[in-house]
Amino acid sequence: MAQRPSTAPKSAKVPASGGKPWETAKSGAGSASDPLATRFVESLSYDRRLYKHDIAGSLAHARMLAKVGLITADECRQIEGGLAAIQAEIDAEGEQWGGWNQELEDLHMCLEAALIEKIDEPGRKLHTGRSRNDQVALDLKLWVEDAATDIEHALEDLAFAFVELARRDGRIVMPGYTHLQRAQPIVVGGELLAWASIFDRAGRRLTAVRTLIPRNPLGSGALAGSSLPLDRQAVADALPALGDPTPNSIDATSNRETALDMTYCLAIAAMNLSRWAEQWVLYNTSEFGFIHLDDRYTTGSSMMPQKRNPDMLELIRGRTGGVYGNLFALLTMCKGLPLGYNRDLQEDKRQVFAAYDCVRDCLVMARRIVLTTRFNSERIEAGLDRGFLDATSLAEYLVTRGVAFRTAHQIVGGLVRTCEQRGLHALAQLALGDLQAACSAAGYPGDTCGADAFSWLGAARVVARYQTFGNAGLTGFEQQMQAWETRLAEVSRAPSSV
Amino acid sequence: MAQRPSTAPKSAKVPASGGKPWETAKSGAGSASDPLATRFVESLSYDRRLYKHDIAGSLAHARMLAKVGLITADECRQIEGGLAAIQAEIDAEGEQWGGWNQELEDLHMCLEAALIEKIDEPGRKLHTGRSRNDQVALDLKLWVEDAATDIEHALEDLAFAFVELARRDGRIVMPGYTHLQRAQPIVVGGELLAWASIFDRAGRRLTAVRTLIPRNPLGSGALAGSSLPLDRQAVADALPALGDPTPNSIDATSNRETALDMTYCLAIAAMNLSRWAEQWVLYNTSEFGFIHLDDRYTTGSSMMPQKRNPDMLELIRGRTGGVYGNLFALLTMCKGLPLGYNRDLQEDKRQVFAAYDCVRDCLVMARRIVLTTRFNSERIEAGLDRGFLDATSLAEYLVTRGVAFRTAHQIVGGLVRTCEQRGLHALAQLALGDLQAACSAAGYPGDTCGADAFSWLGAARVVARYQTFGNAGLTGFEQQMQAWETRLAEVSRAPSSV
Amino acid sequence: MAQRPSTAPKSAKVPASGGKPWETAKSGAGSASDPLATRFVESLSYDRRLYKHDIAGSLAHARMLAKVGLITADECRQIEGGLAAIQAEIDAEGEQWGGWNQELEDLHMCLEAALIEKIDEPGRKLHTGRSRNDQVALDLKLWVEDAATDIEHALEDLAFAFVELARRDGRIVMPGYTHLQRAQPIVVGGELLAWASIFDRAGRRLTAVRTLIPRNPLGSGALAGSSLPLDRQAVADALPALGDPTPNSIDATSNRETALDMTYCLAIAAMNLSRWAEQWVLYNTSEFGFIHLDDRYTTGSSMMPQKRNPDMLELIRGRTGGVYGNLFALLTMCKGLPLGYNRDLQEDKRQVFAAYDCVRDCLVMARRIVLTTRFNSERIEAGLDRGFLDATSLAEYLVTRGVAFRTAHQIVGGLVRTCEQRGLHALAQLALGDLQAACSAAGYPGDTCGADAFSWLGAARVVARYQTFGNAGLTGFEQQMQAWETRLAEVSRAPSSV
Amino acid sequence: MAQRPSTAPKSAKVPASGGKPWETAKSGAGSASDPLATRFVESLSYDRRLYKHDIAGSLAHARMLAKVGLITADECRQIEGGLAAIQAEIDAEGEQWGGWNQELEDLHMCLEAALIEKIDEPGRKLHTGRSRNDQVALDLKLWVEDAATDIEHALEDLAFAFVELARRDGRIVMPGYTHLQRAQPIVVGGELLAWASIFDRAGRRLTAVRTLIPRNPLGSGALAGSSLPLDRQAVADALPALGDPTPNSIDATSNRETALDMTYCLAIAAMNLSRWAEQWVLYNTSEFGFIHLDDRYTTGSSMMPQKRNPDMLELIRGRTGGVYGNLFALLTMCKGLPLGYNRDLQEDKRQVFAAYDCVRDCLVMARRIVLTTRFNSERIEAGLDRGFLDATSLAEYLVTRGVAFRTAHQIVGGLVRTCEQRGLHALAQLALGDLQAACSAAGYPGDTCGADAFSWLGAARVVARYQTFGNAGLTGFEQQMQAWETRLAEVSRAPSSV
Repeated sequence: MAQRPSTAPKSAKVPASGGKPWETAKSGAGSASDPLATRFVESLSYDRRLYKHDIAGSLAHARMLAKVGLITADECRQIEGGLAAIQAEIDAEGEQWGGWNQELEDLHMCLEAALIEKIDEPGRKLHTGRSRNDQVALDLKLWVEDAATDIEHALEDLAFAFVELARRDGRIVMPGYTHLQRAQPIVVGGELLAWASIFDRAGRRLTAVRTLIPRNPLGSGALAGSSLPLDRQAVADALPALGDPTPNSIDATSNRETALDMTYCLAIAAMNLSRWAEQWVLYNTSEFGFIHLDDRYTTGSSMMPQKRNPDMLELIRGRTGGVYGNLFALLTMCKGLPLGYNRDLQEDKRQVFAAYDCVRDCLVMARRIVLTTRFNSERIEAGLDRGFLDATSLAEYLVTRGVAFRTAHQIVGGLVRTCEQRGLHALAQLALGDLQAACSAAGYPGDTCGADAFSWLGAARVVARYQTFGNAGLTGFEQQMQAWETRLAEVSRAPSSV
Repeated sequence: MAQRPSTAPKSAKVPASGGKPWETAKSGAGSASDPLATRFVESLSYDRRLYKHDIAGSLAHARMLAKVGLITADECRQIEGGLAAIQAEIDAEGEQWGGWNQELEDLHMCLEAALIEKIDEPGRKLHTGRSRNDQVALDLKLWVEDAATDIEHALEDLAFAFVELARRDGRIVMPGYTHLQRAQPIVVGGELLAWASIFDRAGRRLTAVRTLIPRNPLGSGALAGSSLPLDRQAVADALPALGDPTPNSIDATSNRETALDMTYCLAIAAMNLSRWAEQWVLYNTSEFGFIHLDDRYTTGSSMMPQKRNPDMLELIRGRTGGVYGNLFALLTMCKGLPLGYNRDLQEDKRQVFAAYDCVRDCLVMARRIVLTTRFNSERIEAGLDRGFLDATSLAEYLVTRGVAFRTAHQIVGGLVRTCEQRGLHALAQLALGDLQAACSAAGYPGDTCGADAFSWLGAARVVARYQTFGNAGLTGFEQQMQAWETRLAEVSRAPSSV
Repeated sequence: MAQRPSTAPKSAKVPASGGKPWETAKSGAGSASDPLATRFVESLSYDRRLYKHDIAGSLAHARMLAKVGLITADECRQIEGGLAAIQAEIDAEGEQWGGWNQELEDLHMCLEAALIEKIDEPGRKLHTGRSRNDQVALDLKLWVEDAATDIEHALEDLAFAFVELARRDGRIVMPGYTHLQRAQPIVVGGELLAWASIFDRAGRRLTAVRTLIPRNPLGSGALAGSSLPLDRQAVADALPALGDPTPNSIDATSNRETALDMTYCLAIAAMNLSRWAEQWVLYNTSEFGFIHLDDRYTTGSSMMPQKRNPDMLELIRGRTGGVYGNLFALLTMCKGLPLGYNRDLQEDKRQVFAAYDCVRDCLVMARRIVLTTRFNSERIEAGLDRGFLDATSLAEYLVTRGVAFRTAHQIVGGLVRTCEQRGLHALAQLALGDLQAACSAAGYPGDTCGADAFSWLGAARVVARYQTFGNAGLTGFEQQMQAWETRLAEVSRAPSSV
Repeated sequence: MAQRPSTAPKSAKVPASGGKPWETAKSGAGSASDPLATRFVESLSYDRRLYKHDIAGSLAHARMLAKVGLITADECRQIEGGLAAIQAEIDAEGEQWGGWNQELEDLHMCLEAALIEKIDEPGRKLHTGRSRNDQVALDLKLWVEDAATDIEHALEDLAFAFVELARRDGRIVMPGYTHLQRAQPIVVGGELLAWASIFDRAGRRLTAVRTLIPRNPLGSGALAGSSLPLDRQAVADALPALGDPTPNSIDATSNRETALDMTYCLAIAAMNLSRWAEQWVLYNTSEFGFIHLDDRYTTGSSMMPQKRNPDMLELIRGRTGGVYGNLFALLTMCKGLPLGYNRDLQEDKRQVFAAYDCVRDCLVMARRIVLTTRFNSERIEAGLDRGFLDATSLAEYLVTRGVAFRTAHQIVGGLVRTCEQRGLHALAQLALGDLQAACSAAGYPGDTCGADAFSWLGAARVVARYQTFGNAGLTGFEQQMQAWETRLAEVSRAPSSV
C-alpha cells in the first residue's frame, strides 16, 4: 500500500509515568486515586517473565509492518535496535530494570513505553494493527513452546534416571504388589522401567496436545482482525514454532486452551510423581526397608534425634495438590465466559507458571533422588519367602499339565490354606504328595502334578519363567532394557537442570 | 508347547451362585454374611455396559490360546459359541439378563460364570494367563475407542451445525464484544465460525491424546505377565484399534490415563459448551434480544405465566460442573496410589461413563438448539449505532494517513469523548472539521484527515474493510465458510444422535 | 382477607398427561416433539427421593393458606387427605408409582398433578403464592436436615467403634510414625482415639455449618415474594427444624449453600476416611503386619490364589475422589451465576445426593471393619526395638538433668550414630560410660547422666512416662478413654445402619 | 519438678550457618551439596509471615516452662527479652532481616537460631518439650484467628456497602430476573440487600466453622506429647483465642482442617463474589445499562479508543478459580495421608495464604466498587414495560377473586399470548373485556375480574403490593433496611482496608 511520509509531530509525547499511553484524558485505574486498583489490575509482577517472547513477537510484527509498507525500513531498523537494547537491559538487570512500572499494568505496555522513550515516533507505530489480546495470546503460546520442550526433556531425563538405576539394581528379585499385598515376584527393573514408561508417556502426551495446529494468533487484533493489510502468514513464518495463523480471530483472542492443555499434562506428570513418591516413601520405611535414600534427600527432626525423613519425596507427593489446583483454577476461570477476551483470562499465566515451576523442580529433584538411591538387596531377599508369591506360578504349571486354569486356581488356593493351617511359610515346603492329593480332590489324576512342579516354585525361579512380552521378570526386563539403551544412545543433549 | 489332553474332571464344578468361582473355601466379601459388603464392592451396576468389549477381548484371547496350544481348536470353538450366545442374550435382555449376579462383583466374573454354566470345562480355561487387571484395562480402552469416536462425531456435527446456521444468518452485522463491552463490529458468521473452530478443535484434541501408543494391555496378567507362552502380538493384531502390546506389564495394569485423557477432553468440550451456552443465554435476554430460541428448547414457569426460559442452555452450562467433578474425582483417585493395581481404580469407570453420558447428551442437544435458532437481524441492527464500534477503524484510517498508531488511538479516544460531551451517539455525527482539529491538536497537519475518513465509519462499512486472514468481518467469514463447505462436502456419515 | 366463595368451574381441567399443567397452549420442552429434550430437562429420576419432604412442605403451606383465608378449611382438609394418600401410595409403590411422569419434569409437578387428579379444584389451589423456586429450596433444606442427622450419627458411631476397639487393643505398645518413619512409641489406643477425635469433629463441623439461620425459604415465591397475605412465620413454625423465615426472597431462591456446606462436610469426612483407609492398608501389608482384617472385608484375586486384598479399605480411599468431585461440581455450577434462580441449580441435588450416598455407605462400612479388626500384638512387639523410638525420651531425661534441650538433642543424635556405627539396634545396648562420654563431649559434667537414664529407654517404659494432657501414651489414653466412656454411656440411640 | 542448676557449657555452640542446629554431624538437605534441595525443602519464603504468631507461641511456651520449673525465671526473662528484640528487628527490617536463612528451612529454626545467637544457653532451652509439628500447628491456628477476623470484617464491610448503596438507590423499581429472563418487578434495594445477606452469611459461616473447639495444639510434641511435666492448660490460657488444649496429640499434629475450613469459607466468599461480579458485568453492558461504574474501576483498551471495560469485576470473577484451586490443592494434599505429621502438610500455608490474600483484596475492591456505583434509574425505567413483569401479579389478583391459582396461571398465560399476537407490550394495554372473556373461557363468571385488576398491573404498582416477609418489593425492602440500619448503628470499628 502507499505509505504517507511519516510526519512525526514534536508535540505528541508519551504520557508521563503514571498513566497508560492511551489514557491521558481519563482518571482510570492505575491512577494515583486508588493504589489498590493499580495493584489489583496489574499482571506485571508475573508476566514479565515473558519479555523475550514478547520481544520476539514484536520483532516479527515490526518486520511484517515494514514488508507491507505500514512502516518504513528505517523505522523498522529503529524498532529492532530499540527492542534489542531493551532485551539486553532486562537480561542484565532483571527485576531491577527501570522500565518496569506497575502503573502500566503489564509487560506489554512497559516494553512499548520503554521503546517510545528510546526511539520516540517509530515506537508509537509498533502497536499498529495489534491489540494486547492477540499479543498476549502469542506470548503465552511462545512461552508454552519453550516450557513444554523443557518439561519433555526433564521427563525424559527422569525416565533415563530410572533406566540407569535399573542397569545397576534391576536384576534384584523383589515382591511385586497389587492392592499393596504381595502378589507375584518381579525384578526391581520391571518396576523401575514401569516408571520409565510412565514418565516417558507423560512427555509424549505433552508433545501430542501441543501440536493442535494452526495456532499463531498475531494479527487477530482485539477480536476482529484489522482493516490494515497485515500479512499474518509472514508473521507466522517468522515464528515457525507455532505453525500457521489461527483461522478465526475471535477464537484466537479468547481461548486459553494452550494453558489448559499444558497444565493438564503437568497435572498428569504430577500425579505420576505422587504415585512414585508414595511407593518410595513406603519402600523407605523401616518395615519395607527396600531402598536407601541418599542423605542429601532426607532431613532430620527438631525434636527426635534419630529421624531421617524422606521429606523430598513427601513434598513431591504433596505438591501434586498445587498442580491439580492450578488446573482446576483454569477450568473454573474459563467456565461460562462468553466470547471474546475477558479480563478473567489474565489469571491464566499465574496458574500455568506456578504449575510449570512446581513440576519442573519436582522432576529435577526426582531425577537426583533416583540417581542416588540404592535398592537393599539383602533386606529384600530376606523377606521374599513371605506371601506365597509363587502361587500363580504353580497354577500355571498345572495349566501346562492340562488342568483348566479356573480349577488350577482353586487347587492352589486350597494348598495355600493348607500351608497356613500347618504353619508353613511357602508352597515349596509342602510334599509332592500334598500337591497330588489336591489334584485328586479336584477330580484330576494325582500324577497330573509331577516333581517338576517344584521347579516352578520360589521367587528366583518364577522371575526366570515369565515369557510374555513386557513381563516384569528377567526376560521382560532385559528386552525393555535393550530398547531403552538404544534410545539413550541416540540422545545427545545434556540432562536438564535448574 | 506340548498340550496335555484335556482330562475334564466331572467333579470340578463352578461354585453355586453366591460365591466367586475362586473363593469356595472362604467366607469372603460377597457372601451373605454382610450384604453391604456385597453392594459396596460390586461394580456390576455400571461396568456391565462393557459386555461387548469384554467379549471381544475374550474372543481374541481364546483364539490366541488356541494358536499357542493352551487350549484345543475345539475348546476354542466352544468358547466362541458360548460367548456369542451370551452376547446375543444380553443384546436381547439387557439388564434383565439372568446372568447378572451382583455377588459375582463385576461383569467379568458374570460372563465367565455364564460361560462355564453353558460349556463347562472349556469355559474354565478362558481365564488362562489372564487377570481381571489386564482384562479390565483392555475393556476400558476398547470402550474409550468407541466412545471417543462417538464424541468426535458429535463435536464435528456440532461444528457443522454452526456452519449451517452461519450459511443462513452469517452475514448479519452485529457488535463484537470484549469484556462484554461493545468492541468492534463483526458479522454473525464470524462468531458462529469461532464456535465451529472451537468444537472442531475439541475433537482434534481427543484424537491427539488417544493415540498415545502402544497400548493393548492384554497379556500383562495381574502385574507381572505370565509364564505361559502367550502371544500378545496376536491378541493385539486381533484388536487393531488399540495398536501394539503395552511394553511394561506393571504400568499396563495400574495406570488409568486412558480414562483421565478421555475425561479431560470431555471437560474441555464441556467448558466450551458452557461458554457458548452463557453467550446465548445473554443473547436470549430481553435486553440483548439477538436470538430466538425454538419453543422446544425453552420452558415455562410454575408461577409466572409469561416466562420462556432457556433451560436447555442453562443445564448445558451447569452440567459443566459435573464433568469437571468427574475429572477431579479421577485425579484424586490416582493421587498417591503405589503400583500396581489397587481397588481404588475400580471407580474410574463410574466417572468416565458419567462424563461421557453428560457431554454426549449436551453435544446433541446443543446441535439441535443451534439448528433451530434464528438471529434477530432487526433487533441487532437497531442497536448497532451504540458503543462507537467504529473507533478502531477510524484510528486505522489515520494510520494509513501516516499517523503513528499510538497517536491515532489518542486522537480517536479524544473524539469519542467529544461525542459524549455533545450527546452524539456516533463518530459519523462529527464534522470533518472536528476530525481535522483533533489531528492538528496532536501535532499533525489538519489535512491528515480527509473526507474519505467517513467511509471508514459505520458498522456495515467496517465489517467490509477487515482484510486480515481469519478476520471476523465479511472477507474473513467468506474465506472460512469456503473451507468449511469443502470439508462438509467430504463427510458422508449421518449426524450422530442419541 | 376476604375470601370469595370458591366457584370451581367444571370446565377447567388439568391438561392431559404429556404437558405441564401451565403449558397447554405451547409446544414446549417435554412435548413429544423432542424426546431428548424431555430427558434432558427432567430431574424426576433423582429428585423423587424428596417426596416426603415435598409433601411435608405442601402440608405446611396448605394449612397456612387456610389460616390466612386463601383456601377454605374444607379445601385444606381435602388437600391433606389427598397428599396423605399420595404419600401412602409412594411409600408402597416406590419407583413403580403411577404418578411419576418424566414429561412433567420433576417431583413437584408430578405430585401436584396427582393431587389435582385426586381432588380436582382444591388441588389447583395448592400452588397459590408458591413457586417451584422456593419449593425446591425448602425440600432440599428439609432433606439436608435429615441427611445431616444421619451422617452425624454415622460419624459418631464410627468414632464409637474406634473407642470399642481401643477398649480391647488400646494398651498394646506400638511405634508412632511421622513421615511414615518410626518416631516415638505410642499405645494403639492413642492412635485409635485420634481417629475417634477426627470423626467426631467431622460431625461437629456438620452441626456447626448447618445452623446458619434463619432459613425457611417458603413464601419467597419465584424471587420476589407474593402480593398475597402469606404468613411465612406460620409455615416456619410448622417446620421447626429449619428455624425462621429467610430474610430476603431473592437470596432464598437462588443460593445453594445448603448443598455446598453439606457436601464440604462430606468431603472432609471422606478425606479423613481416606487417611484412615490408607493407614490400615499399610498396617495390613505383609511388611507391617499390625492388623488382621476380617475375611468379610477382604477379597481374593481372579488370578493369584493366595491373595487377601483389603478391597473395602481401598474403595473407601478411592471413593474420596468422587466426593471431592461432587464438591467441585457444585462450586463450578455456582461460579458466575447471576441472581435469581437459574436452571443450572437443578444439578445441585444430583451432586449432594451422590456425595451423601457414598459417604454414608463408607462410614457404615468403616464401622464394621473397625469392629471386626484385631491388632496383632505379637507382630507389633517383635519389631518394637527397631528405629530408636526412645531417642526423644533420652533427650528429655537429659533435660531433667539440666541439659539444654537443643544440646540434649545433639547428644542423643550422636549416640544414635554411635549405635549405628557399632551395629547396635537400641540405645539401651550402650553402656552408661558411652552416655556420660557424650555428655562430657558436649561440655557437661559426665555425671549429668546417671544410671537412671536406662529407665527412660525401651518403648514400654516410654509410653508410661508421657505426662502431657492428650498424650499418645498410657496416661493420655486412659484419660481420653474415660471421657469417651462417659459419652458413650449417655447415648441411647441404636447405631446407624444401611 | 526438681530443676538442676543450669550448667551452661561453654563449648556447646550453635552450628555455623549452613546446617540446622540439630544436624551438625550429617550432610543432609540444606547442605551446600545440592542447592536445589535447600530450595526445594524450604518454607521460609512464605512462612515468615507467621513470625508474630510464632513468637507469641514461644512466649507462652517459655512462661509455662518457667512455671513448671523446666527453666528458671531468669532464663525466661532472657528468652522474653530476646524474642522481643527479634520481633522488633523483623518489624523494622521485614524481608531484609539478617536472621532469615533459607538453609535453616523455615521460620521456626530461623527464630530459634537468632535467639541462641542473642542469648546463648537459655535460647537452647526454648524448644524443650516442643516439636515443629505442634509449633507450626499452633502458628497456623493463631494466624487463622487473625485472618478470619479480618475476613469477617471485610465481609461485613462489603455487606454494609450494599446497604449504603441501597439507602440511596434502593427504591428504584427494576426488573427481577430468573433464568436471566425478566420475571417480576422488584426494587433495586431488594437485590442489593440480597447481596448484603449473602456476604453477611459468608462471615457467619467462617465464625461457625472456626469455633470447633478445643484446639490449642501446643504440648502435643512431634506426635506423642512429652514425658516432661508441661502444663498445656497454662499455655492455652495464655493464648485465649484458641481455647482449650487439643485432646489427642496425634490428631493435633497431623490434621490441617483449620486451613481447609478457612479456605472453604474463602471459596464460598469467592463464589458469591463471582456471582455478584457477573451480574454487574451484565448490568454494565450497553444492552442492560443499569449501572454506572466509577472510572477508577474501569480500564481502557490498547487498541480500541472508546472502551471502558469493567476489569475489576472481571478479575474478581476470574480469581474465584484460584481460590477454588487452593481448596482443591489442600483436599488433594490431605487425601490418603496416614497419621501423623507428613511433610506434604508444609504446603498448607502456601494455599491458605494465597486464598486469603486473594479474597481479602477482592472484598476490599468490591466494597469500593459498590460504594462508587450508581444505578441508572432513567435507563432502567425506560425498559420496565418490557417482559410482562406483572403477569404473576394479575394471576394473584384472580386468586383473590376465587380463581384457583393453577387456573389463574393458565388464564394469564393466555392473555400474555393474546398481547403478543396483537403486538401489545403490556397486559395493561388489554381491555377489561379481554380479561373477563379469558375468565369466562376458563369456566369462571366473567365478572370474576373487575376493573380493579388494573391496579395490580404495572411494575410500580406491583412492587408496592408485595406483602410477604422478606419480599423484594417496597415493604420487604424497608423492613430489611431497618434491620440493617439498626445493626450498622451498633458497629463501631473502622472499615477494613488494605
